[in-house]
Amino acid sequence: MTKNLSNVEYLKPFANEDLHFNIISKQNLIEKWFRNQWTKYPPPFYSSIDIRNSGFKIAPVDTNLFPAGFNNLDKELEFLYISAIQHFMERISPEISKILLITEDHTRNKFYISSIEALKSLIKKSGFDVNETKLIDLSLNLKSLNQKNNLLNVNGFIPDIIILNNDLSDGAPKSFEHIKQPILPNKNIGWNNRSKTDHFEYYSDITDNFSRLLEIDSWLIAPYFRNCGEIDFQTKQGEECLIYNAKKLFHIIQEKYDEYGITEKPYIMIKADSGTYGMGIIMINDIDSLKNLNRKQRTKMSKIKGGNKLNSVILQEGIYSYEKFKPTNHVAEPVIYSFGHNLVGGFYRMHDLKNNSENLNSPGMSFHPIPFKEACLSPNLNETIFSDTNKFYIYGVIARLAILAASKEIYNTE
Amino acid sequence: MTKNLSNVEYLKPFANEDLHFNIISKQNLIEKWFRNQWTKYPPPFYSSIDIRNSGFKIAPVDTNLFPAGFNNLDKELEFLYISAIQHFMERISPEISKILLITEDHTRNKFYISSIEALKSLIKKSGFDVNETKLIDLSLNLKSLNQKNNLLNVNGFIPDIIILNNDLSDGAPKSFEHIKQPILPNKNIGWNNRSKTDHFEYYSDITDNFSRLLEIDSWLIAPYFRNCGEIDFQTKQGEECLIYNAKKLFHIIQEKYDEYGITEKPYIMIKADSGTYGMGIIMINDIDSLKNLNRKQRTKMSKIKGGNKLNSVILQEGIYSYEKFKPTNHVAEPVIYSFGHNLVGGFYRMHDLKNNSENLNSPGMSFHPIPFKEACLSPNLNETIFSDTNKFYIYGVIARLAILAASKEIYNTE
Repeated sequence: MTKNLSNVEYLKPFANEDLHFNIISKQNLIEKWFRNQWTKYPPPFYSSIDIRNSGFKIAPVDTNLFPAGFNNLDKELEFLYISAIQHFMERISPEISKILLITEDHTRNKFYISSIEALKSLIKKSGFDVNETKLIDLSLNLKSLNQKNNLLNVNGFIPDIIILNNDLSDGAPKSFEHIKQPILPNKNIGWNNRSKTDHFEYYSDITDNFSRLLEIDSWLIAPYFRNCGEIDFQTKQGEECLIYNAKKLFHIIQEKYDEYGITEKPYIMIKADSGTYGMGIIMINDIDSLKNLNRKQRTKMSKIKGGNKLNSVILQEGIYSYEKFKPTNHVAEPVIYSFGHNLVGGFYRMHDLKNNSENLNSPGMSFHPIPFKEACLSPNLNETIFSDTNKFYIYGVIARLAILAASKEIYNTE
Repeated sequence: MTKNLSNVEYLKPFANEDLHFNIISKQNLIEKWFRNQWTKYPPPFYSSIDIRNSGFKIAPVDTNLFPAGFNNLDKELEFLYISAIQHFMERISPEISKILLITEDHTRNKFYISSIEALKSLIKKSGFDVNETKLIDLSLNLKSLNQKNNLLNVNGFIPDIIILNNDLSDGAPKSFEHIKQPILPNKNIGWNNRSKTDHFEYYSDITDNFSRLLEIDSWLIAPYFRNCGEIDFQTKQGEECLIYNAKKLFHIIQEKYDEYGITEKPYIMIKADSGTYGMGIIMINDIDSLKNLNRKQRTKMSKIKGGNKLNSVILQEGIYSYEKFKPTNHVAEPVIYSFGHNLVGGFYRMHDLKNNSENLNSPGMSFHPIPFKEACLSPNLNETIFSDTNKFYIYGVIARLAILAASKEIYNTE
């Protein structure tokens, strides 16, 4: 294998050859390990995983169990998505033929509408009847549940299975419990119950395990994080604890940077622990800036999606992105999509106003399909370590580790 | 839906709109039916299905359970093959990591070598260790079976599963029975045990059933066939029975042609009942030509693959091919490949020296990948009935009916 770095500008600063090589050369070991994991922890129906690649480490920073953006997937690979959906449903039950999609209520958002249309079209092409309803419109149907043997019936459509594309930020209707049809990914895994901290604790356990298998340092594939208790950015309640944990976090990241000879400056993302949509996120470069948050920042950290109050955060190690999209030179981060444990592609999220330490999930972002012909399925040892094929395989491994963490979350919620 | 025929030259003579429309408009019903069938009758590891499309009927004419030609598949869709192999193995057991391929002995054939290399590469990319051995080279390893707990061990490689790419025309080694590892598709399904008649009896039952579901005439998707007992083309033993059955067959085909107003002349393919490789096949246009077979034809019908004696034939309704490959105008027939019940693509087999009633599987044939972006997975009701997408969906349905017939064959052999 040639170790030729010449064609990967984006990885120059601290490209970790050992990490990359370890993953791509141990494909069979890795695939066998995953095969076993999925039998123990069945994967969720779908997910999208935000990954950051700094060259010296590659890790997920967000695992979305109610993904949107299906309209941004590469249309040319549609048959791959169809095949993955069919496999997933086959695993659940061959009896499934009608599927109900419960969507977000804010269906005036044209991007979200396009995403739901794309998703419905895929499910339809997979050979299923599909209908959609907003969560808010379900109330009447839920009221009549009991009269109908607890089978949810939406205007005559009695689904065999229900798929949530509403993240339940505003909570789940109480009568959800009584619905007889299976609800996927799980009625208790919405943002009303879930926290990023929980997820990354599962992820951390999994990567400890996985890293032993590969004989690598688990830090190379997992972001450090810490969690505080209750917090109120307006009244500054809980801020001491936040500063204490941020200090600790900066310290252990710096230790790792020193160990690997990384001269970049550590930074931390503070994120609403149950937030989504890129809301409730700030980035801090040092403790002082955390101590001196301005009013705009405090306001930003007070509300999350649906106008709900932000009262808990996760402090997550920031991971630089050294992926630059040619020819525009925009900072890019890969977003990988899955149905079941099947990776089905993804795109680069880009932002021309953001630098390589910032959150790209914000207004002004754009998308570019990831040109992966092999859908993250297989590395190629005849290519250079940092070739696209090999890089996408690594993304596929990282994404699946995050999906596995979500699978364990769901498994332990049920 | 527009019923526009203008773009389908190949189907002009007797294109059956009702048949096509019935299949493409009932996708959900069809997919549900298949999902149920696969749970009852697990599909074989792989297959290739030869299909003939005369416009007025579309049917398989050969189902190969030991396919070659993997080198002819479209490289661009490799990830689809990988994904299908992974799914298949996952269904068998997550413990599988080593796979042994038992190949044909005639490995000097460069096309066969390329096919095996392509197949091995796919299995490897799917995350498995793979080794190959010729059947003929297995003898030593088989002798030492008992000393090793009946685990087949080929030069230190102990596979978790064994895949046959040798069709066992020359019979299976007796000690095959003692091998502890699973042998796929099945050690009793080689051409030493199997007959085309058995297969098409299963196929016929399945299409009767399927046609009731779709409310169509099952003849539209199944070739008529008859079978004689023992036959010897050299000594003419059994020839009376052959002529008797050929007469009957011509008669019932003509009845159907009359019913549908088809003005073509019926013809019959006489095929070695356990033959393969396009050997042991003649075509007859009428009873007289069967009565007056010349020496060349008789010689041709005496030997099948491996120099084995041909002693049993199937008489199969000939199906005209109205697929013409532009721009060369060669007669073409689709060959569809599968791993498990997943269709993974295929190619058109073409022959510039053959007309639309002849067997194209003969020296001089060429191949052209089928340009199907959606891998036969889904029709498109917004396109014309005879669009490529819709045609390939129909091929996918027909191919799966043949795979299901093979699945039942295997199920009842085990």
